[in-house]
Amino acid sequence: MARKYEELAQELEALISAGTLRPGERLPSVRETVASRGVSPSTVFEAYYLLERRGAVEARPRSGYFVAQRVADAAAEPRLMEPASGLRDVAVNDMVLEVLGSVRHRDVVPLGSAFPSPDLFPLDRLARGMSAAMRRLDPREVLENLSPGSEELRRQIALRYVATGTLASAEEIIVTSGAMEALNLCLQAVTQPGDLVAVEAPAFYGCLQALERLQLKAVEVATHPRLGVQVDALRAVLERHPVKACWFMPNFQNPTGALMPPDQKKALVELVTRHRVPLVEDDVYGELYFGVRRPVPAKSFDREGWVMHCGSFSKNLAPGYRIGWASAGRFAPLVERLKLTSTLSVAVPSQAAVLHFLQHGAFDKHLRQLRSTLARQQEQCVRLATRHLPAGTRVTRPEGGYFLWAELPPDIDALQLHRLALSQNISLAPGQLFSTDGRFRHHVRLNYGHPRPDQLEPALRTLGRLAARLATAR
Amino acid sequence: MARKYEELAQELEALISAGTLRPGERLPSVRETVASRGVSPSTVFEAYYLLERRGAVEARPRSGYFVAQRVADAAAEPRLMEPASGLRDVAVNDMVLEVLGSVRHRDVVPLGSAFPSPDLFPLDRLARGMSAAMRRLDPREVLENLSPGSEELRRQIALRYVATGTLASAEEIIVTSGAMEALNLCLQAVTQPGDLVAVEAPAFYGCLQALERLQLKAVEVATHPRLGVQVDALRAVLERHPVKACWFMPNFQNPTGALMPPDQKKALVELVTRHRVPLVEDDVYGELYFGVRRPVPAKSFDREGWVMHCGSFSKNLAPGYRIGWASAGRFAPLVERLKLTSTLSVAVPSQAAVLHFLQHGAFDKHLRQLRSTLARQQEQCVRLATRHLPAGTRVTRPEGGYFLWAELPPDIDALQLHRLALSQNISLAPGQLFSTDGRFRHHVRLNYGHPRPDQLEPALRTLGRLAARLATAR
Repeated sequence: MARKYEELAQELEALISAGTLRPGERLPSVRETVASRGVSPSTVFEAYYLLERRGAVEARPRSGYFVAQRVADAAAEPRLMEPASGLRDVAVNDMVLEVLGSVRHRDVVPLGSAFPSPDLFPLDRLARGMSAAMRRLDPREVLENLSPGSEELRRQIALRYVATGTLASAEEIIVTSGAMEALNLCLQAVTQPGDLVAVEAPAFYGCLQALERLQLKAVEVATHPRLGVQVDALRAVLERHPVKACWFMPNFQNPTGALMPPDQKKALVELVTRHRVPLVEDDVYGELYFGVRRPVPAKSFDREGWVMHCGSFSKNLAPGYRIGWASAGRFAPLVERLKLTSTLSVAVPSQAAVLHFLQHGAFDKHLRQLRSTLARQQEQCVRLATRHLPAGTRVTRPEGGYFLWAELPPDIDALQLHRLALSQNISLAPGQLFSTDGRFRHHVRLNYGHPRPDQLEPALRTLGRLAARLATAR
Repeated sequence: MARKYEELAQELEALISAGTLRPGERLPSVRETVASRGVSPSTVFEAYYLLERRGAVEARPRSGYFVAQRVADAAAEPRLMEPASGLRDVAVNDMVLEVLGSVRHRDVVPLGSAFPSPDLFPLDRLARGMSAAMRRLDPREVLENLSPGSEELRRQIALRYVATGTLASAEEIIVTSGAMEALNLCLQAVTQPGDLVAVEAPAFYGCLQALERLQLKAVEVATHPRLGVQVDALRAVLERHPVKACWFMPNFQNPTGALMPPDQKKALVELVTRHRVPLVEDDVYGELYFGVRRPVPAKSFDREGWVMHCGSFSKNLAPGYRIGWASAGRFAPLVERLKLTSTLSVAVPSQAAVLHFLQHGAFDKHLRQLRSTLARQQEQCVRLATRHLPAGTRVTRPEGGYFLWAELPPDIDALQLHRLALSQNISLAPGQLFSTDGRFRHHVRLNYGHPRPDQLEPALRTLGRLAARLATAR
């Protein structure tokens, strides 16, 4: 349930987005708002503080609250790029591993990282809970935690679905070694080598790597940088090609941060159900929303079990614990069987730690904090990117997650920029990683999940300088 | 290094095996042995105690130590069965999952289990060590424990290879989610769907399931129940068929417990090297030896990197923690890449727990205890099996591990016996699970890794009664 002040903040943000309240304008005073809304003064204060943390408003001493001058509002969003047509072999692995391998060093500013900073997570509380749970563990539970996973953990996961109106019983949930394994097993359960899979454009490179490993072919579907995969475009693809599976991220897509509107999710599920094409839904960022409510998964519209929803605690609670899951609908028995014969089961201590935190750890409180931190960091990163990256740069402003997707001026090669930046100890994820043909070559994904303001501004200034040099060099 | 008393015990055991010292004969007194060997009295006492724990000798009050009356010596070992000839599709999964699914219940006497009792492991000390290690963890290590795994853990694993004269540097070691993942990734790294893989007969069903999942064909190689895979038979297979990989267990093979002699391991590695056929070596039971020294892995004879040695801590230290590894020789980069794109990395708490135990936990002391327990339990299980199973039953007496392989009289169907036994809350692993064609149909694998003497005798008595009923029913 959203709290009152969150609802108020959301309404005010909507007014700001719609332009009803414009940058520099004064917000109604606390007294006026109390009178007009019938809420308590503390609710109004909380809402204003929240908006301030998100960078949407600013307090001026003795004058009240004003709509912030958001530099970012000046930056346009990246454009929808038509995907490559036809069926494509996938061979991104070499490039992805080269780029990811290069960004691990501690001295590198991790704008190219796929992970948020581990400092944002309650690692100490998790370790203490795990220790308590493991010491109370009946040794026989070691065997009972085998696949499909701890019964109580699966029940807790099922319970969290309820809040989004999603029907997913504990019976169809298989605990996996992170969402990566869940996604891979789901895809493998419904495809054979040579089969065709519909993917987003741009797509998460992990999806492309999975296709490559399983020797599947990709067909790309137009994906809007703010609104996600285009259902009409998918309809045309399904009518033309014998697609065996879709792999999409309706919530805070990687790399764009796009969020599909609920009616589009509904249309998507109706479409794949009609065509009897399984949808692998990657929803690892769904809990990292900045709005009032968790965006629903496409799975919430699934009535016939064609959606295989994959989630994880790696991005929102317990990085490195490797606890993910698949809620695999009608394909659950197949997925469980693949799990049993490939990695057998998931580490018991990790299952125990996450379960203990879900039961005793104030998960929702931790999530509220994490969301507010990420929202604040996005604001800052957008402001700095807009200030320092070359004129003409377009940036997404996702409503959740920790990635920005930036479209640089067309004469800047992102892979070159990545190599130059790395020589200055700055990483980024070049757009070439996110398609079968390296097409997003003047795009970059920037990670704002690392709260080091002292690093961020110098890094973006350097990036801007390098990008400008690349632009003039041509 | 073996201790003095272990060496003495080993020598006495050799004398007993060779028949120089016969059942019922008196061992030399402590005073005589001190004089003849030049060792201390406490060394002699320790050796006699060890032999007593292993069931090889028995103390008679005021008379001294005597060679035990080993009922098991009466039972012959199972016969070598020629494998099915030709190439075979693999489809064991349904039966394996049916059987394994049925044996998990707490009330079932777990003779069919694949796991030893969790009570044999230092779960409490592991949990405490993990907790200490996780609280000291620098959050940045969460990312540094990504594949190929914690650097220090890989170094510790490499160090343990040194003791067996095996060259395996930390660089070629990839930490995995148990040995099951290691084995699967190694096999996948060197095969394509449709390829041919040489397997043992009988073979571990996990190997057959892996072939089935990866759509590989099997060619079976004659495997002696005590001496393991027959190198001459493999030579003939490699000359006739385009084999792309071998998957063998030279140490304490599952299900037979066979141990390949060192010269056969050497011949095996020379053969696969000459044919440039990768050998996936499953060595998860190697540490559970009852003799003086750890049997060497085939990998110890590998000079050109064709052996992919897979190990695990699941069977000897930390069940449920899911820490295994592959030391993948020339294929290490391929295996690491598959790991990264399928399950990304291994749980950090599990890596930390095992590493902490290796560094501070007296792993070798724990192993000595575990080996002595298993050896004692084997002795007991062999004695009871010989007493209660029908006349004509043949049983292996492996020099390590926790499985017996029993050949029942030929008119007893093991799958039928399994179903009858399960209705009496007793499980066993029918021989049909261990080949592509259900050929070992009057064989069963019995797990003696569950120390419940109060359960074992009634269970074996019941099994014997059911088997006798099946025999007469025909």
